[in-house]
Amino acid sequence: MQKSKRRRKDPILQALGHAIRERRLELGLSQEMLGQTAELHRTYITDVEGGARNISFLTLLKLAEALKCSLTYLMIKIEEATK
Amino acid sequence: MQKSKRRRKDPILQALGHAIRERRLELGLSQEMLGQTAELHRTYITDVEGGARNISFLTLLKLAEALKCSLTYLMIKIEEATK
Repeated sequence: MQKSKRRRKDPILQALGHAIRERRLELGLSQEMLGQTAELHRTYITDVEGGARNISFLTLLKLAEALKCSLTYLMIKIEEATK
Repeated sequence: MQKSKRRRKDPILQALGHAIRERRLELGLSQEMLGQTAELHRTYITDVEGGARNISFLTLLKLAEALKCSLTYLMIKIEEATK
């Protein structure tokens, strides 16, 4: 149903997904636990981590809050991964 | 038609819009010129700068590229403005 929101995997979305996954694992959270805190479905987390979602800014913010990290932290991780 | 994508103005979207506007003016660009470079409509730029759009990550990236700045730069500006 939400296929229009899925994208061909973009390197920057993949780098974002990787940074989110890495941070989640650092905190010892499952995708389900992160989803509950951020009020997002577990499968949405799976998609974001896989770089399959062009996430909106406010949803990204919710995820950063649930991951107890700043947006700047995530952007630095992306830039490190894609430079 | 795209009303569902418009949001009640969120402080973080307003801070993002402000950072984008500031950077655009620093480069001496009009909203129209920025829109052309980023392949976005001028009215979309107006909305983003006004904090009225929950922009997607890939669109934000296009804007950052057109503004010749990093995503990290924009996030730092937001964090400075909202702390």
